[in-house]
Amino acid sequence: MSEQSPLDPAEGDPFGPHNLPYGVFTTAGEPGRPRVGVRLGNHVLDAGAAARALGSPYAALLDRPGLDPLLAAGRTAWRDVRRALTAWVTVPAHRETIEPLLHPLDAVTMLLPYQVADYVDFYASEHHATNVGRIFRPDGEALTPNWKHLPIGYHGRSGTVVVSGTEVVRPSGQRKAPADAAPVFGPSVKLDIEAEVGFVVGVPSPQGRPVALGDFRDHVFGLSLLNDWSARDLQAWEYVPLGPFLGKSFATSVSAWVTPLEALEAARTSPPARDVPLLPYLDDSAEEEPGGFDIRITVTVNGQVIAEPPFATMYWTAAQQLAHMTVNGASLRTGDLYGSGTVSGPEVHQRGSLLELTWNGRDRIDLPDGGRTFLADGDEVTMTAWAPGPDGVRVGLGEVSGRITAAPAG
Amino acid sequence: MSEQSPLDPAEGDPFGPHNLPYGVFTTAGEPGRPRVGVRLGNHVLDAGAAARALGSPYAALLDRPGLDPLLAAGRTAWRDVRRALTAWVTVPAHRETIEPLLHPLDAVTMLLPYQVADYVDFYASEHHATNVGRIFRPDGEALTPNWKHLPIGYHGRSGTVVVSGTEVVRPSGQRKAPADAAPVFGPSVKLDIEAEVGFVVGVPSPQGRPVALGDFRDHVFGLSLLNDWSARDLQAWEYVPLGPFLGKSFATSVSAWVTPLEALEAARTSPPARDVPLLPYLDDSAEEEPGGFDIRITVTVNGQVIAEPPFATMYWTAAQQLAHMTVNGASLRTGDLYGSGTVSGPEVHQRGSLLELTWNGRDRIDLPDGGRTFLADGDEVTMTAWAPGPDGVRVGLGEVSGRITAAPAG
Repeated sequence: MSEQSPLDPAEGDPFGPHNLPYGVFTTAGEPGRPRVGVRLGNHVLDAGAAARALGSPYAALLDRPGLDPLLAAGRTAWRDVRRALTAWVTVPAHRETIEPLLHPLDAVTMLLPYQVADYVDFYASEHHATNVGRIFRPDGEALTPNWKHLPIGYHGRSGTVVVSGTEVVRPSGQRKAPADAAPVFGPSVKLDIEAEVGFVVGVPSPQGRPVALGDFRDHVFGLSLLNDWSARDLQAWEYVPLGPFLGKSFATSVSAWVTPLEALEAARTSPPARDVPLLPYLDDSAEEEPGGFDIRITVTVNGQVIAEPPFATMYWTAAQQLAHMTVNGASLRTGDLYGSGTVSGPEVHQRGSLLELTWNGRDRIDLPDGGRTFLADGDEVTMTAWAPGPDGVRVGLGEVSGRITAAPAG
Repeated sequence: MSEQSPLDPAEGDPFGPHNLPYGVFTTAGEPGRPRVGVRLGNHVLDAGAAARALGSPYAALLDRPGLDPLLAAGRTAWRDVRRALTAWVTVPAHRETIEPLLHPLDAVTMLLPYQVADYVDFYASEHHATNVGRIFRPDGEALTPNWKHLPIGYHGRSGTVVVSGTEVVRPSGQRKAPADAAPVFGPSVKLDIEAEVGFVVGVPSPQGRPVALGDFRDHVFGLSLLNDWSARDLQAWEYVPLGPFLGKSFATSVSAWVTPLEALEAARTSPPARDVPLLPYLDDSAEEEPGGFDIRITVTVNGQVIAEPPFATMYWTAAQQLAHMTVNGASLRTGDLYGSGTVSGPEVHQRGSLLELTWNGRDRIDLPDGGRTFLADGDEVTMTAWAPGPDGVRVGLGEVSGRITAAPAG
């Protein structure tokens, strides 16, 4: 086994040649030179070096310090580059050239793979929105009247999107319990996670021109895992009337790997049946391609599984979110990132936030080092996921992880 | 007069050498080469060419296609560059070199002068927030309980920030009157303005490290006028519970000129007295520099003045907004832009939105071409402003204007 070539990952490896997600890495030898990498098994191919070595015209897209040129290149280029990469890692004639360009994953540092333009976060799980509504508005309707008519979303802070592995400093801010006369200031005492999938826009669209449901694949390149860290106590005090702000803006973590949509053909699935008729720009009942993705997420805290949210249960699809986000004429830019919203399924162990899992702190989660309601300093949260691939092989979506460090003194 | 040198603007010109705002322009001869310009009277100095011609080391900051390097350079550089520019346009020995580098304003095209990183919009006028509360929650308290404890804000879409003069396409979207059974789709019928001042961040701050009140001047370079176009009908239906989204994200216009804070020393003024004690990170009572700016805004529709909002009446200051925005550890980037929120004074003619001026369409504004509640296609909205400068001379803040074009068919 120790002599096995990195070009021969084990059969059934979720990062086999059927997957080929993109990232950006540096090596210990050249920490100042970020480069595009493509994952194969537990190795990363220096894709730019491969393109150069093979005299490929795609060096213009791959021999770059970030994914942005590839993202902007469009669907035909995405397909052609993927075909080329598949050939490079599978055709025996390329073996000698390619093998030395594969770096062990544990010998490289992964970076945020593209410049995040605008970051939008949605709220697309009916189970999540229902749970949140029951927790915060126990006497009212769980879902707001607009929820089934449009995918609710808001803009987040793109400057604080960080790559998996980045430590997350516990945020401080104002909180106020309903019974308190005035707010108090201090480190958040309800630091939470939100297990999400993030969609990465490649091809821009002009201002004033909506992007139709059916044009999703022409604009969206791929997806990542996303953890939308949330300070529930800050959020609860600030969010009326203009929505979440500091409760979310301190950090959002994404996985280092962007999985192209083309690797997820076998994972496409129909979203749940809709209860109310949709306006035409959101009505996907006649779309050729099913709008959902069968992605199985696992959330761990300090290595212990706390939830297994099923992305297939999301009410609103990524294509609907894109159509909604642009129906007012808002333009898209390369690097726009939008989160699905917290993924929660119908079962208790499928809930994608501690808010839901502990019912806003009423219940505790048992970990080997003690119970938790919300996150403690030092906690490490990791989300992993996979989706069905061709021939029953899984497509790995990598992981997004982050460790909580204490709020600075003061 | 026709022979007057562009280096000699009329006495009292609000764009005299005491002002010197920065922008980015192209000429008809070289439309593909954006360059940094500094306004003097009705001319714009090609600042990079001037720096080159005079052998100035500031060519590295000025001979660039955007303001970003200057913004990032920091407070000492801002001061030194401003001193140099002042000398270039006032010292007789430079006249012969500088005069040919001044282009008439009407012969150049002004561009968005820097790359907008994150865009945040606040809600800092007590008069505005009170009016909005009375309109939308007539039976409740006008201000939400958090309003006087923290500057409420939210993230907007930075990708749709456009420079003054850019046409604004009327957005379409969902709206639903309370009595309607279901939402309808179509062009907004309540297209509005919000007269604001926008603050431009120059120097970044690291994630996890709040920026203190007193460090405002180390991070914020200057300000612009800002019109936060708002579709009130879209906003009303979508904004509960996560805040404004499509009602705002179609376009935000900013003036072409960024006025450095150094030009506004004489305009500093104390904010209104605060009604409730502030938490230490927001308490500016012991700050050396008064936190407000005495900026007088005029809003016109099709040339007719409809409002004169006084910025000096804003409850929350730009320094408080910056301290709040980062108190959770959110980082700053060069090019971050934050809007003050709609500027409304206590008087009816000081209200900075049509929502308030027409009391959500109950009243009409008379224009020569007919009455208005909200904006009609073809309407041109222009905001101008000035502030007190040294020796009683005004500091002009330029203008932000935009014309509404019809929503695309379909």
